Amino acid sequence: MKNVNAEIISVGSELLLGQIADTNAQWISQQLAEIGINVYFHHTVGDNEARLTEVMTLAQKRSDLVIVTGGLGPTDDDLTRDVAAKVLQKNLVVEESILEKIEQYFVKNNIAMSENNRKQAVVFKEGIILPNEEGMAQGMYVEHEKKSWIFLPGVPREMKSIMVKHGFPFLQKKYQMNKQIVSKVLRFIGIGESILEDRLSDIIREQTNPTIAPLAGEGEVMLRLTASCQNEAEGFAFIQVVEDKILARVGKYHYGTNDDTLESTVLQLLKQLNLSIASAESITGGRFIDRIISLPGASQVVPGSIVCYQREVKEKVLKIDEQLIEKYGTISEQCATKMAENIQQMMNSTIGISFTGNAGPDMSENKPVGTVFIGLKIGTKEVVCKKYQFTGVRNTIRNRAVKKGLELIYHYLKNNNLPTV
Amino acid sequence: MKNVNAEIISVGSELLLGQIADTNAQWISQQLAEIGINVYFHHTVGDNEARLTEVMTLAQKRSDLVIVTGGLGPTDDDLTRDVAAKVLQKNLVVEESILEKIEQYFVKNNIAMSENNRKQAVVFKEGIILPNEEGMAQGMYVEHEKKSWIFLPGVPREMKSIMVKHGFPFLQKKYQMNKQIVSKVLRFIGIGESILEDRLSDIIREQTNPTIAPLAGEGEVMLRLTASCQNEAEGFAFIQVVEDKILARVGKYHYGTNDDTLESTVLQLLKQLNLSIASAESITGGRFIDRIISLPGASQVVPGSIVCYQREVKEKVLKIDEQLIEKYGTISEQCATKMAENIQQMMNSTIGISFTGNAGPDMSENKPVGTVFIGLKIGTKEVVCKKYQFTGVRNTIRNRAVKKGLELIYHYLKNNNLPTV
Repeated sequence: MKNVNAEIISVGSELLLGQIADTNAQWISQQLAEIGINVYFHHTVGDNEARLTEVMTLAQKRSDLVIVTGGLGPTDDDLTRDVAAKVLQKNLVVEESILEKIEQYFVKNNIAMSENNRKQAVVFKEGIILPNEEGMAQGMYVEHEKKSWIFLPGVPREMKSIMVKHGFPFLQKKYQMNKQIVSKVLRFIGIGESILEDRLSDIIREQTNPTIAPLAGEGEVMLRLTASCQNEAEGFAFIQVVEDKILARVGKYHYGTNDDTLESTVLQLLKQLNLSIASAESITGGRFIDRIISLPGASQVVPGSIVCYQREVKEKVLKIDEQLIEKYGTISEQCATKMAENIQQMMNSTIGISFTGNAGPDMSENKPVGTVFIGLKIGTKEVVCKKYQFTGVRNTIRNRAVKKGLELIYHYLKNNNLPTV
Repeated sequence: MKNVNAEIISVGSELLLGQIADTNAQWISQQLAEIGINVYFHHTVGDNEARLTEVMTLAQKRSDLVIVTGGLGPTDDDLTRDVAAKVLQKNLVVEESILEKIEQYFVKNNIAMSENNRKQAVVFKEGIILPNEEGMAQGMYVEHEKKSWIFLPGVPREMKSIMVKHGFPFLQKKYQMNKQIVSKVLRFIGIGESILEDRLSDIIREQTNPTIAPLAGEGEVMLRLTASCQNEAEGFAFIQVVEDKILARVGKYHYGTNDDTLESTVLQLLKQLNLSIASAESITGGRFIDRIISLPGASQVVPGSIVCYQREVKEKVLKIDEQLIEKYGTISEQCATKMAENIQQMMNSTIGISFTGNAGPDMSENKPVGTVFIGLKIGTKEVVCKKYQFTGVRNTIRNRAVKKGLELIYHYLKNNNLPTV
């Protein structure tokens, strides 16, 4: 396999106006990565002849393979064919078989065909057609001075259909791709990105196949291991060796792989251990339990929960002693502890978790914005209550509290800190 | 106003691997269009020094304003600062005030600070800092040979916060934008997109300034009115004329403008009318009340709520008669009605709302996936209970139920169907 460096050009003023996101470039990149073609650039340009010429000229110079989406439609705005013909010194001809299909379409649908629809039957004389089974604008392949170009319509459904049926198989054959790329994401919680990298810096530096790329997520860190290989089995074997090395150092923080989420991992653990959970939520207002109920199978482990937003509900419904609140306030270790105990009892669950704090915008009970207490009652053990100071705006604070609650539960269950019931 | 041609550079190998779509470039483009700055190119490049240098050098040549996102993190992968310093011939210095904040963050959160975190306090000596209130990587503005550069972190939340609070106001002042674009979004609920367009087709067709663009949202429809004008007052005057015409026809379905959400409108109404609300949530699992608690000021109107996911909690905590459930099931009009009545009483609120249904994946109590009952109890009025059949996957069904609940409340309150208490 030779090393192929690709570039994707997206043509369309609607992209530069921000009316749509460039999901075409994303999808093509993903697919190319999987067959082992490196994408080095995405370049987006509007429906403008001079700028499109500039972008195509640059691509011809720097890339082995250029994939262009958009600008193949019937209107005057659609310049891709004409500009490409000039830059790549090709001739444009009407392809009769396509023209026929277009005419048939209009007859069949009983619509008058306008002159500019003929434009979609125009192709490069020196090129190959990559048929579009979903629409009128055909895909095209053409070469210029040893560089390869693929032209595709911008409509995602049509573009994907052409690439899956004709484009990718063509490229794999052309470049004799017998290699493929497999990857695996390892997910970590409770360790910062920079510390994780510090601990693994020698492994990350020395590692070439698979490569290791750290990714920062919302309140968590991920490592993507990507292997180049002859087949999947070989790729995952390469990855396993490195994964073992990584987990020997930071396995303590590792909670899942690929599409796992912290809540799906926690739900899985609760099910395995046959435990149930209920929450008493003030600051998080139901968001914690909603995260778990988002997942199918939650009904096995969640009996219910209480959102106790106002003090009165903490007292009257959750039965927290009025004097306790009078003395310590609702944003306190004492209140969080009682909330966790009482919700466990009320819902008859193995685990009770509580959240109380200040999400802003102002100080509350003399506690600054971001102060959160989380109480965790597991079985007959004493409540563990932790105080946090989160940063960010209202819902960032609330999300961080939810994530921290999941992390706490995960931590306790994983370390076999199991309930004695 | 001079004509400003902008370019957006997105830095990050994860974009070229197709792991994420470049929504940053989309969002920035949209915002720039609104203040009258043309975006001519998006250019995406990986974490590679040579290629990043090439992309920045090209941008300096061809664009008046370059906005770079990504590559400002603490790791060795993050090259944006260093490459920019070389291309734009600037000096990098440690900004003590930022370093202090970073150090404080680590102390406050009781995490060890690693050496590479210092990197995020490094800024251009000749530049201006655009403060990041949501994270560590600061935004920066710098000039080189009359070209303007803005550097932003890649995390969308941080990037947006910097641009909204500092970046866009700075640009508007710098370029003395006097021709401007103002726009207003009108939001509708309870009417489909095609019906709305049908009713307004002549107005939409004939209108040029402002233009009218229909946008479909999740369970709602929006119209974006965009006027080109000398100043805001003129623009909004243009818009007002057309808005009045539109609302004369479909005002009944209009619930808000711009960033209003159905929940913010409902919260506003509840506050105005001095009402309170509590929910009893089975299928929605706390998601309804979380939507309201997401908004500041919710504590005035929400005492609390109950998530009654398992039948036992409906009976024991929410005190629904066992025989009623035995006879009609939990997914029934009778159960939803009782849930709404009981939660109102338990939480001592003016309004009680209930959600019970089947979010899938399988049939439940002989009810197909998507069946949802919503009960609404307002003051001393009889409960209104409605049955819905929603389509979609688990969380789509749950979201639609929440939205419908908000719509119901809005409808009743707006039409002065006020509680007699």
